[in-house]
Amino acid sequence: MPVGHPSDRTFIAETIAIGSELLLGGRSDSNSLFIAEMLGAQGIEVRFKSVVGDDRTDIVNALAIAVRRAGIVMLTGGLGPTDDDCTRQAVAKAMGRRLARRKEAFDGMTAQLSQWGRVPSKAQLRQALIPSGAVVLPNPVGSAPGFALSWKRSLVLALPGVPREMELMMRHSAIPFLTAQLKRSTKTSPNPIVRSVFHTWGLPEAEIDARLEGLIPKVAPVNLGLLASPMGVLVSLTTTAHRPVKRNMVESLEKEVHARLGELIFAEGQDSMEAVVGRLLTKQKLTVAVAESCTGGLISHRLTQVPGASVYVDRSIVCYSNRAKTEMLGVPTELIAQQGAVSREVAAAMATGIRERAGVSVGLSVTGIAGPGGATETKPVGLVYVGLDAGGSESVTKEFRFHGDRSVIKQRSSQAALNLLRRWLLARES
Amino acid sequence: MPVGHPSDRTFIAETIAIGSELLLGGRSDSNSLFIAEMLGAQGIEVRFKSVVGDDRTDIVNALAIAVRRAGIVMLTGGLGPTDDDCTRQAVAKAMGRRLARRKEAFDGMTAQLSQWGRVPSKAQLRQALIPSGAVVLPNPVGSAPGFALSWKRSLVLALPGVPREMELMMRHSAIPFLTAQLKRSTKTSPNPIVRSVFHTWGLPEAEIDARLEGLIPKVAPVNLGLLASPMGVLVSLTTTAHRPVKRNMVESLEKEVHARLGELIFAEGQDSMEAVVGRLLTKQKLTVAVAESCTGGLISHRLTQVPGASVYVDRSIVCYSNRAKTEMLGVPTELIAQQGAVSREVAAAMATGIRERAGVSVGLSVTGIAGPGGATETKPVGLVYVGLDAGGSESVTKEFRFHGDRSVIKQRSSQAALNLLRRWLLARES
Repeated sequence: MPVGHPSDRTFIAETIAIGSELLLGGRSDSNSLFIAEMLGAQGIEVRFKSVVGDDRTDIVNALAIAVRRAGIVMLTGGLGPTDDDCTRQAVAKAMGRRLARRKEAFDGMTAQLSQWGRVPSKAQLRQALIPSGAVVLPNPVGSAPGFALSWKRSLVLALPGVPREMELMMRHSAIPFLTAQLKRSTKTSPNPIVRSVFHTWGLPEAEIDARLEGLIPKVAPVNLGLLASPMGVLVSLTTTAHRPVKRNMVESLEKEVHARLGELIFAEGQDSMEAVVGRLLTKQKLTVAVAESCTGGLISHRLTQVPGASVYVDRSIVCYSNRAKTEMLGVPTELIAQQGAVSREVAAAMATGIRERAGVSVGLSVTGIAGPGGATETKPVGLVYVGLDAGGSESVTKEFRFHGDRSVIKQRSSQAALNLLRRWLLARES
Repeated sequence: MPVGHPSDRTFIAETIAIGSELLLGGRSDSNSLFIAEMLGAQGIEVRFKSVVGDDRTDIVNALAIAVRRAGIVMLTGGLGPTDDDCTRQAVAKAMGRRLARRKEAFDGMTAQLSQWGRVPSKAQLRQALIPSGAVVLPNPVGSAPGFALSWKRSLVLALPGVPREMELMMRHSAIPFLTAQLKRSTKTSPNPIVRSVFHTWGLPEAEIDARLEGLIPKVAPVNLGLLASPMGVLVSLTTTAHRPVKRNMVESLEKEVHARLGELIFAEGQDSMEAVVGRLLTKQKLTVAVAESCTGGLISHRLTQVPGASVYVDRSIVCYSNRAKTEMLGVPTELIAQQGAVSREVAAAMATGIRERAGVSVGLSVTGIAGPGGATETKPVGLVYVGLDAGGSESVTKEFRFHGDRSVIKQRSSQAALNLLRRWLLARES
C-alpha cells in the first residue's frame, strides 16, 4: 500500500551504502535493514535505499539526489584506512567543506587502538579527517569514527560499514544525535512506526491472505504485509510514520490476527521456532533427542543455535544410511525392506528408537527425499515423514509433500518437525 | 578502487528493487547481486542500486533518476496481482504510455496457470497489462510476465521480484533481449567483466592483505577485493567493463594468487568447502562419519547440502551431553573427568569412536565452547578442538581459539573441521 506523500520530509530518510563489493561481491546491503528498524522506532521512515561503489563522483551525486528527497541521509561504509575508502572526501567535496584532522577523532582512535596494543598506522591517520562543521560520532569498537552534519535542510550522518560498529554507533551516538536535532528543529514530534511481526507455518501465502481479508479498515493508517519463504509466511502490521495511530487500534488488530490465524502463528517479532521450542521444553523440564535422515543435521543445528540448549538437547543422530538407522536406532531391517526407509512406519520407529536409546522425554524424527536423486515411482522428491514419540501411547507421525530444491526441502522438513514438537508441547500445557 | 567514468553510459546499469518489504521487512535486496553477475558477464557494469517501496510516485522518480545515469535499468518486483503492485502503472506513467492488455502476455499467463489446473483470477488479469511499445518477456514459471522498452536513450526492463522467476527470465529472455539490442545499437562490443573468486581459510584479512601486497600492477584494469566473514576471507579479482583486459593477464594474476596463498585457498568461484570435500571423498572412495559437540549438527548439515552426499556420508552423532559421548562413542568417563569434555584427548577419542562404530574410512570430531555460557577459568568461550581419525597411525587433532558469538563460533568450528578433512584428503593424493 502506498505510504502517501507528506509535505514534511523531515521524517523521511534515505540510506546510502557505499562499497564496490556491494555492487558485485556476493554481499548485499543488510545494514540498511537495521537502520530502517532503528529509525522507524523513532518515527523516521526509510523510504529510499541506495548502493554505490567506492567512487567519489558517484557518492557526491548520490548525496545530491538524497538530500532532495530525504530529511535524513544515512551513509554507511567507505570510512576505512585504504585508498578505496573515500566517503570523507566525497562528503567534503559535495558540501564544499574542508577536511581536517579533528582532535577528538584522533584521540578516540588512538585510545581504541591502544586497547589492542597498537598505534595508528599512517593510513589510519586519514580516519581522523573530518569535514569542517561536522560533529564526530565516536566508534567504541573500531578505529574509524563517524560524523554528522547538516546540509541543504537535511541531516547527513556517516557511519562505518562493519555491521557491529555501525550497530553500536546507531544506538550510542547516531540515534541520540538525531532525536536531539529533531527535537530542536521541529515543533511536531514524529509518530514512532509500530511494527508487529507474526511468523506462521502450515498454510500457503494465498490462504493466509484469504484468512486476513478485510482485516484492516479502509482508512486505518496501518499496512498489512505478507512475505513467503521456505520457513513459512511472515505477516506484518506496520503503522505509517506520518499519520498518528492509536496504540489500542494496533492492539485490537494484533488480537484479530491471532483470532484468525491461531496456532499457525509459531513466533512473534524477533523470536524463532527453535527458541519457542526451547522455552517450552525448559518450562516443562523435558529433554529431547532427534533422529534425522533427510534434514542431515539441520534440526539439531537449529536447536543448538539457542544459548542454553544443552539443558534440553541430549543428542542427535543423523542416520543417512539404512545401516545407521538399524544400528543406532534399532529400526528393524525388515521394516525398512518392506516399507522403505522413507515411510510413516520407519519415521515412527526412528522416533521411538532415539527416545529409548537416549533416555530422553521425547524423540523426534524425520525421514524423506530431499532430492534431486532418490525418488521412486511411488515416492517423489519432497515426500517427508515426521515422527514424535514420548512413550506410552504418545506417538504421532505426519506426512508432507514439499516442493523446491534440496536446500528448501531440508528447511521445510526441519520446520515441520520442530512445529510438530511445538504443537505437542503446547497441547500438554492445556 | 574507483572504476572511472567512461563517457559511454551504454554499458552502465542500475537496478531498482521495488517492494515496501525491502525497506522495513527484514529482507534485503539480493536479486540485484544475481543481476549484477549476469550483466557483468556481458560487459555491463551495475554501478547503482536502488530500493523503493510500492509507491507509484517514488517509482516514477527513481526511474527518472536512473535513466539519467544508466543506459540499462533493471526493475524487479511490483508485478504481482495485488493492489500494492504498481510497477506497470508507474512505468506507463513515467513514460506517458498507455497500459493495455496484451494478447501474448495473457496467453502466456493462461497457459502457465492451466498447468496448475487454474484459470486467471480477476486480480491476475491485471498482470497481462503491458505499457504500449513494450516487448513482453515471458515468465516460464509464474503468472506475471515482464516487459522491456526503451526510454530516453535507456533500455528499461521490468522483471518479477520472486528470485526463481527473475533468475529464469534473466537467462531466457532478459539477457538475449539486451545483447540483441546492444548489438544493434552500438558499434563497439563491451568487454565482459571477468571475476575470479578465491575462498580462503586459515589467516585473518590483514595477513591475506599483506601476502597480496603489490599483486596488481599500478596500471592494470583489475581490482583486488577482500571480504572477511566467519567462513574465511574471500579474495576477488575483477576486471572493469570499460577498459579492455587481456585474458592472459587475468590468468597470470590468478596464478600469482595461487602462488601466494597456496593451500589457504579451499575453493574457487561458486564452489564450496562441503562440495570440495565431497568430491575428494568420492574420488578416493572413502566414507566419513562425524561426531559433533559444539557445532550441534552444522557440519553434518553442510555435508548433506551437497546432492549425492549419501554416497560418502554414513552418519553423524551430535553428542551434546557427556553421557552421549560415552554411550554413543565410547569416550571413557574417566577421560572426560580428567581432561574435561573440551580437550584434545576427548576430540581424539570422539573421532576414533565414531570411525570404529560407524565402520567408515574416516571419523571427524569437534568439541568446544560455543558460548555464551560454559567457560571456565582455563577454558574460555571459543576454545575448540577438532579431531580426525582414519585408523592405524592416522590421527590428528588441532586446537583453535575463536572469537565471536555462539553462531559465529559454530560456523568457524565447522569450517575448521571440514578444512582439516580437506587437507588430509589432499595429502593422501600427493
